Amino acid sequence: MQDGQHGGALDLMRAAFPSAPEPWIDLSTGINPWSYPFRDIPDAAYRHLPVRDAYDSCRSAMAKALRAPAESLLLAPGSELLIRLLPKVINPRRVAILTPMYGDHVEAWRRARCDIIETEDPLGLADQVDAVVVCNPNNPDGRRFAPDSLLRTAERLACLGGWLIVDEAYADLDPSLSLAPHGGKDGLIVLRSFGKFYGLAGVRLGALLAPEALRSEMQHLLGVWPVSGPALHIGKQACRDEAWQREMRSRLADARVRLDRILHAAGLKVVGGTDLFRLVETENATRLWEHLAHHGIYVRRFDWSDRLVRIGLPETDAAETRLSAGLTP
Amino acid sequence: MQDGQHGGALDLMRAAFPSAPEPWIDLSTGINPWSYPFRDIPDAAYRHLPVRDAYDSCRSAMAKALRAPAESLLLAPGSELLIRLLPKVINPRRVAILTPMYGDHVEAWRRARCDIIETEDPLGLADQVDAVVVCNPNNPDGRRFAPDSLLRTAERLACLGGWLIVDEAYADLDPSLSLAPHGGKDGLIVLRSFGKFYGLAGVRLGALLAPEALRSEMQHLLGVWPVSGPALHIGKQACRDEAWQREMRSRLADARVRLDRILHAAGLKVVGGTDLFRLVETENATRLWEHLAHHGIYVRRFDWSDRLVRIGLPETDAAETRLSAGLTP
Repeated sequence: MQDGQHGGALDLMRAAFPSAPEPWIDLSTGINPWSYPFRDIPDAAYRHLPVRDAYDSCRSAMAKALRAPAESLLLAPGSELLIRLLPKVINPRRVAILTPMYGDHVEAWRRARCDIIETEDPLGLADQVDAVVVCNPNNPDGRRFAPDSLLRTAERLACLGGWLIVDEAYADLDPSLSLAPHGGKDGLIVLRSFGKFYGLAGVRLGALLAPEALRSEMQHLLGVWPVSGPALHIGKQACRDEAWQREMRSRLADARVRLDRILHAAGLKVVGGTDLFRLVETENATRLWEHLAHHGIYVRRFDWSDRLVRIGLPETDAAETRLSAGLTP
Repeated sequence: MQDGQHGGALDLMRAAFPSAPEPWIDLSTGINPWSYPFRDIPDAAYRHLPVRDAYDSCRSAMAKALRAPAESLLLAPGSELLIRLLPKVINPRRVAILTPMYGDHVEAWRRARCDIIETEDPLGLADQVDAVVVCNPNNPDGRRFAPDSLLRTAERLACLGGWLIVDEAYADLDPSLSLAPHGGKDGLIVLRSFGKFYGLAGVRLGALLAPEALRSEMQHLLGVWPVSGPALHIGKQACRDEAWQREMRSRLADARVRLDRILHAAGLKVVGGTDLFRLVETENATRLWEHLAHHGIYVRRFDWSDRLVRIGLPETDAAETRLSAGLTP
């Protein structure tokens, strides 16, 4: 099973557990199960190359939703691509990376042959490295960094030409954490993901906020039409819908409380997470993962821990009930 | 007007010629005006991260349509991104590039600080350079290279670790030109575009065919989910529909004959092109471009020529009539 790296491989799970009951319940990702109900993608969005205006209006809608300076923001087909292209745009020698964290960052910098320090205190190493990478709130443990201390870190790094890179893939859940309003500041790179909070990961839309020179380098790599017409259309609609965003935040918070209740009732210890996923500690992560898989429930395990499992939000009452039942020994 | 670089900037044209009659007729791109009528994009394609199976079935459908070995092919969100990432994956010192040609190639290699030789005979320089770049059939003049001589060039380049890069953005029009069946061969990189022939440029789908080591490097840059769920769904459908492809080839050939008739009747000289666009020579390209713009007709001019204009296929009889009328002095 190649599921240790990322979640979302439901086709592989089906093949590995052919006698599990259908439909599978996929709790392996931290993606909102109640996706934004976008309307009316015009034919032209598929047919024509996206015009400048389509790009600009998606960008300014997203910037407004993030309370970011619009000109500091660049759109991309998913933040994954940005994570992987960053080492082609900046060249730090030593990189301090928060651990545990979403694994793509370490992999990208390792492939770029940087010296990597994986640490629980990357901000504390700001004076000793050329780049610091954190995720805020962090995936998978939900750890939160105060914007003030991040800003101070960015300032210190900027003095010597270094960078603070903040992956805010889950910051829509708590905008007060976000450095997006400081987008464009020296030494600060913020990555945003559209698909997680809006529940539209297949659309492939993400953003980079950074100073002009870096943004321009990245834009040259990505080209004139990096994002699909449908993604620009959907992104604009969703980012403008503040009522939906507000209601969704509280709906996710409620669902998270219910999920915690289910996990506690099953005797599991929740050790972290966000309103889109919970990190659970258990005696034997593989045993729990396998047990749930036999019940047609797909959760995320990690290749770096025997004791942790990440569990996303069930979409329906029925899914909550099945999870409860599946967790009962 | 920033239209010298690429076509497709209809919003800018509207702003520059506010009194032109609506609707505008956009003939500035070489994109099929009769787009593939895809059906039923499932909700899941937008909502979930594309599963491996969705990627694989789009890839094998495209490989089959191209008569290419499936494992030699890698999907990307448009060939533009591949053009721009290639210099991050291979490092030629000297690059011979066909001229005239689609300008993104020169720009990408120039940004990578390669020594560039722009030449009408790039194949003849194979022994003196590390990479040769051609477009087949070529954009904008429609020049065609015989597959045999391209293959020999790739072989010669491969001997010294060099590369032949063939951009086949318009090769769907004449599959006999394509090197896709040789995908994976040493020294050969083939780029394919989905949006042009299928008339779905907004979808952002393209492909790279190359030997395993290069493909794997590129895959690491692009990540696990480079292409959107809707693009994979549409790409699979369209690539499997051989009847549509056959009929479309003959429909485009007919439309091209009608377009040539219109151009000839207006006293214009067609000096090249493909079944998706014609290259026209005229005394003063800017004057013709501006004249047509005042009639609400958008054609492509070039920053490297005062005498050439590229004109795409009108979608309807009415558009053909308006083009005829617009061209009458």
